[in-house]
Amino acid sequence: MSRSFRYAVNVTPKAGILDPQGRAVEQSLGHLGLAGVSAVRVGRRVELTVEAVDQDAARAIVERLAGELLSNPLIEAFQVELLAETSSVASGAGR
Amino acid sequence: MSRSFRYAVNVTPKAGILDPQGRAVEQSLGHLGLAGVSAVRVGRRVELTVEAVDQDAARAIVERLAGELLSNPLIEAFQVELLAETSSVASGAGR
Repeated sequence: MSRSFRYAVNVTPKAGILDPQGRAVEQSLGHLGLAGVSAVRVGRRVELTVEAVDQDAARAIVERLAGELLSNPLIEAFQVELLAETSSVASGAGR
Repeated sequence: MSRSFRYAVNVTPKAGILDPQGRAVEQSLGHLGLAGVSAVRVGRRVELTVEAVDQDAARAIVERLAGELLSNPLIEAFQVELLAETSSVASGAGR
């Protein structure tokens, strides 16, 4: 039997790394009439479903994907977040 | 006195909206030798600091920013997440 988990990977620019999208947001605040907003950092959020035998195996897949495909480790940090165990998937007649 | 809050805004493509970045990730999984990953959706994560008199006022600013600048309401949904109350900022001598 394998189980199905929904994860999110949050990828953000590391501290000290220039973030032009964040600067662009900050510079647009005046046009919206919003004040008091600072330290804007723009990253990515990737949500995905993983099938694995248990949560440890699922997280290992997500961590590998996050480090090798979804982020650039030189300039970005990532953090893995379990959203839900979506369902159990029976495989074979043993269950 | 105003207080300082750190928020994250998670912007994701709505269900049914084509997500070419998510498809690209799915198609790269074979090259990495990873199996069991599906339903990949790629969005944005914006982290920011807001100064406001209280948490309700801070969240109102973030909601407005998220709806008017950070997301396209036609094709994207957003969700606001309080990360931390980072500090209290005294203003004036009354405190």
